[in-house]
Amino acid sequence: MRFFSDNAAAAHPKVIEAIARSNQVDTAYDGDEWSGRLDGAFSELFETEVRAFWVTTGTAANCLALAALCPPYRGIICHKDAHIEVDEAGAPGFFTGGAKLMLLDGPGAKVTPEAVAAECERIRKDVHQVQPAAVSITNATEYGLVYRAAEVAALGELAKERGLALHMDGARFANALATTGEGPADVTWRVGVDAMSFGFIKNGGLNAECLILFRTELADEIAVRRKRAGHLASKGRMLAAQILALLEGGLWLDNARSANAAARALGDAVGDRLIYPVEANEIFLRVTRDEAASLLAQGFDFYDWGPGEIRLVTSWDQRAEDVEQLAAAIAAL
Amino acid sequence: MRFFSDNAAAAHPKVIEAIARSNQVDTAYDGDEWSGRLDGAFSELFETEVRAFWVTTGTAANCLALAALCPPYRGIICHKDAHIEVDEAGAPGFFTGGAKLMLLDGPGAKVTPEAVAAECERIRKDVHQVQPAAVSITNATEYGLVYRAAEVAALGELAKERGLALHMDGARFANALATTGEGPADVTWRVGVDAMSFGFIKNGGLNAECLILFRTELADEIAVRRKRAGHLASKGRMLAAQILALLEGGLWLDNARSANAAARALGDAVGDRLIYPVEANEIFLRVTRDEAASLLAQGFDFYDWGPGEIRLVTSWDQRAEDVEQLAAAIAAL
Amino acid sequence: MRFFSDNAAAAHPKVIEAIARSNQVDTAYDGDEWSGRLDGAFSELFETEVRAFWVTTGTAANCLALAALCPPYRGIICHKDAHIEVDEAGAPGFFTGGAKLMLLDGPGAKVTPEAVAAECERIRKDVHQVQPAAVSITNATEYGLVYRAAEVAALGELAKERGLALHMDGARFANALATTGEGPADVTWRVGVDAMSFGFIKNGGLNAECLILFRTELADEIAVRRKRAGHLASKGRMLAAQILALLEGGLWLDNARSANAAARALGDAVGDRLIYPVEANEIFLRVTRDEAASLLAQGFDFYDWGPGEIRLVTSWDQRAEDVEQLAAAIAAL
Amino acid sequence: MRFFSDNAAAAHPKVIEAIARSNQVDTAYDGDEWSGRLDGAFSELFETEVRAFWVTTGTAANCLALAALCPPYRGIICHKDAHIEVDEAGAPGFFTGGAKLMLLDGPGAKVTPEAVAAECERIRKDVHQVQPAAVSITNATEYGLVYRAAEVAALGELAKERGLALHMDGARFANALATTGEGPADVTWRVGVDAMSFGFIKNGGLNAECLILFRTELADEIAVRRKRAGHLASKGRMLAAQILALLEGGLWLDNARSANAAARALGDAVGDRLIYPVEANEIFLRVTRDEAASLLAQGFDFYDWGPGEIRLVTSWDQRAEDVEQLAAAIAAL
Repeated sequence: MRFFSDNAAAAHPKVIEAIARSNQVDTAYDGDEWSGRLDGAFSELFETEVRAFWVTTGTAANCLALAALCPPYRGIICHKDAHIEVDEAGAPGFFTGGAKLMLLDGPGAKVTPEAVAAECERIRKDVHQVQPAAVSITNATEYGLVYRAAEVAALGELAKERGLALHMDGARFANALATTGEGPADVTWRVGVDAMSFGFIKNGGLNAECLILFRTELADEIAVRRKRAGHLASKGRMLAAQILALLEGGLWLDNARSANAAARALGDAVGDRLIYPVEANEIFLRVTRDEAASLLAQGFDFYDWGPGEIRLVTSWDQRAEDVEQLAAAIAAL
Repeated sequence: MRFFSDNAAAAHPKVIEAIARSNQVDTAYDGDEWSGRLDGAFSELFETEVRAFWVTTGTAANCLALAALCPPYRGIICHKDAHIEVDEAGAPGFFTGGAKLMLLDGPGAKVTPEAVAAECERIRKDVHQVQPAAVSITNATEYGLVYRAAEVAALGELAKERGLALHMDGARFANALATTGEGPADVTWRVGVDAMSFGFIKNGGLNAECLILFRTELADEIAVRRKRAGHLASKGRMLAAQILALLEGGLWLDNARSANAAARALGDAVGDRLIYPVEANEIFLRVTRDEAASLLAQGFDFYDWGPGEIRLVTSWDQRAEDVEQLAAAIAAL
Repeated sequence: MRFFSDNAAAAHPKVIEAIARSNQVDTAYDGDEWSGRLDGAFSELFETEVRAFWVTTGTAANCLALAALCPPYRGIICHKDAHIEVDEAGAPGFFTGGAKLMLLDGPGAKVTPEAVAAECERIRKDVHQVQPAAVSITNATEYGLVYRAAEVAALGELAKERGLALHMDGARFANALATTGEGPADVTWRVGVDAMSFGFIKNGGLNAECLILFRTELADEIAVRRKRAGHLASKGRMLAAQILALLEGGLWLDNARSANAAARALGDAVGDRLIYPVEANEIFLRVTRDEAASLLAQGFDFYDWGPGEIRLVTSWDQRAEDVEQLAAAIAAL
Repeated sequence: MRFFSDNAAAAHPKVIEAIARSNQVDTAYDGDEWSGRLDGAFSELFETEVRAFWVTTGTAANCLALAALCPPYRGIICHKDAHIEVDEAGAPGFFTGGAKLMLLDGPGAKVTPEAVAAECERIRKDVHQVQPAAVSITNATEYGLVYRAAEVAALGELAKERGLALHMDGARFANALATTGEGPADVTWRVGVDAMSFGFIKNGGLNAECLILFRTELADEIAVRRKRAGHLASKGRMLAAQILALLEGGLWLDNARSANAAARALGDAVGDRLIYPVEANEIFLRVTRDEAASLLAQGFDFYDWGPGEIRLVTSWDQRAEDVEQLAAAIAAL
């Protein structure tokens, strides 16, 4: 039973249908009918004018945005456990042309205004030290924690004061909103976010993510950077169609709610093994090496997260019986 | 009726079926069953051990390979009309970290050994001038011309003598082979090609291209570069499945033969308007501005190729009646 | 007798004295007294507020400026014989992060408004083709031709219309002004130049060039880029002192006048062998291979400039008797 | 009295004389007589064949070497206080094309085999995490500590085992050797160092540093990278002449011994205020804010090194009476 990664889940049937339905002759690249509807769909969702760019990976969505927000000779403040730091093979360095990630510490991969301010203070304001240009946060974080609007607002204010751009890696943005009940606008542009990655692939999509620009004046640059990075698909309609299928009728939120519910159920069952509160669809547990081995032997798969810790991730299509079996197995350890 | 671009065509139904069939839980990235079969499938096709990497665009396939073949401080010799020069938004500069494209002239976007040798001679062998590291050719060329094995062999020998790598942009590789009847191995590694882009998207695929490495020792580097460029899809099985569907039973060659046949029929009909012989699925015609306008008005779409020239491209699914109608319309001009 | 390159000449004695005189404890980098006087000295010379940055090579001066004027994903229009294209080992690609040089043809390495406009027209205004961001001209050109203020003005107007920045490589700027008698301001910021390299090394300096910013808002970026490229010298006073010594009392113009006079004398003597008019300190001659060999055998050194052509360059310290001897030797061929 | 930085000191008179003496016509760039003697001089010093490249800053020397030792998609393990991390404005990212610095902690900015091994272990061996390609150490360190041959040997062995290159930033290499009495070869290539920066500017030079390659097969690449980075001076003889003047008769070691002796004298005088043992020419002291202010008011200048700490650096020309006065002033605090 898979608790390994939401990345590995199947796509939602409606997504596959949308791909099939959009498989017809149309203008190449992003000149087609489906791609043409993206800006409007996201502008409606975010209650303001935005520009939306499909890409095929979260790494591309993150790093294209960061390249537009941070020149090669400056830095991006982020958590030391941020996906852009630990799981993108140095892509920020590649896309930005050598900008520096400036790493913060702190529990649950959460970025706090205090930590950002301290990092800014630490840096001498001279030409010998790299100066920051942006802050990047992940919502939900790599440890499944969620930013409330007020938290992002505090970061947004600080960023503005310091002249820093604010970027959100929203690979699990849907999971975050499904928990807080806050609206997409409330935790993004209204509180200072300049650009974000809106994740679909972990949430029922097949291979489409979306880069959302709240600073729409960057759209031309992003369009060129996307092409230049080999991310302008010839038949982009298949990417737009996936995203539209997930947006339609709020399927993206329904999927996230399902995944979150499975995680919460599991979290409730495992009691004090929890390392972090379960706020989205990731669960981090304390288990001994032997216990982990026992769970694996029983057919549960998950990620070994260092000595004495494992990571479980639930997906939009997680079966209730799998969750129950795993909960029972953990209880029986 | 569409004669605009094979890029804009629909994907073959078997490709869509393959995507749907592969839509199941499996290991993320390229650890799945379908991706695991790629190396074997292409090694069989090429009659030697190769390494195959799916990506989602031809630009990515070309430029990842070029980055591995050419360091940032050297150059890539190619035709001035090569796709990497005129249609990839400077992607070679981005992926290589600033390597220089060294442009050759000559009819039909074809690279000749004479032109390559002359370019090498032109460059002073000192530290002030950029020295070439690779040659890149496109087969079929941007003008629909095809390289025979002997032609590639001459370039391969020259490249070897000069210490240059040889890259092939095979966005329309299938169309080239469908014309010459030569085998995949005959025009590639057997005659000196080090790496190539094997195109599927213009030939019935949806969004999967393949980078083929004949110099398999570069595989680890390519794997990292692919990830770093945001081209390692989470659900890569959907890319591998497309490619395998097109390889199976030679569907890729059948598709190319269909497209070529349509182009040949059109070429035969238009007589001396042809600017280049029709060797693949592209037709370049001399038409006046008024004639072009008349064709557009009749519902044919195509690419304006500068003063007095138009480009027509046929696709795997080109309907015979469209070709007939266009031929008649041209005859009636 | 040396007619090889003004690069190889000795520095003026006053430059050496200035280095020795500035050899005392002072603040490191550019915080010293001499460096502090540069902005003022050049602002006075240019009759407007400028920012001046010493560097140690013309390549650094050119490419730092270009990196600030052109983002990685755009292009720089220049002549195909421009130093940045043929003699800087791809430095523009390195400093800009992969921007493209867009090459113009035309006699004497001179850039004309017509050629720039044609290049702009040639480029499709879409995301697939690299769009230009800047024009770079060399004054005096690589063939020793000089731009008059009106010529630069025509380029400046065109650049403004097209939204392009205008850069001047002034490695031999002094030689150009010594000929035209126009003022530094007249051929630069007053006619649209945004940034320039002001050359001293070929004109009596030892190892100091100066990057001049007319768009002073780019100064902070240039300061960081200079450091980041390893061009912020610890004891920068030795660079500033050289430049100030050459500016003082107009030594830079005197030196250029000497070099130009030697070139003119030589040009007058060689008659119809001249390939280009002698407008600065470079002379290009038609000589047969045997004639060139004969001159070399007589102890004259110069640059072989391809079949049937040689390049002679005079320096600030060129001796009159050397010029006379060479003129006689050429006459006797 | 200056205890601010050895960077700010005057050059040794013999260096200025050498610059003046080499100020004569010779071949441009590094084709001159002085530059031609560098390889031999350093090969003799290091008792093996090396290739030596003058550059004008330590940043250039470090980062050119790192670019040749580490591809853009890998990382360089170094101390979090290393000059390349904190004082080069992100130059490693620029020169390498985006490689990552992987930061170690530990007292005195010293890199230990244990820390390197732990960092290697921490990195998952997959395509998502950046893999290291090199280790860089600074000798003497940024806190004035010195590596003995045995210490470098342990790092060299580990690097070899792990397939990592080993780089030494030797901005204060002379000061290190002056303390240990070990030979240049003993702490470099004999114990696994592949390339180093050999510092002269902080040790009596004016603006010449030297990049030494023990892996001589990288020489062609370095030569091109140097040019491409704008670091190939036209009149390179002035750089070579400085270095040769300092090598001659062991002046470089004499200078370092003077600076070290001054530091030792000071260290001996300040007793338990010392934060690190004085092993080269840097002294780090615990002083209160008021004490620091008092010293400044008495005319001593130095670097504020964060709360309660100051840095003092002695130079080759440090006057004994200045040291005595400062020692007395500290004693009187």
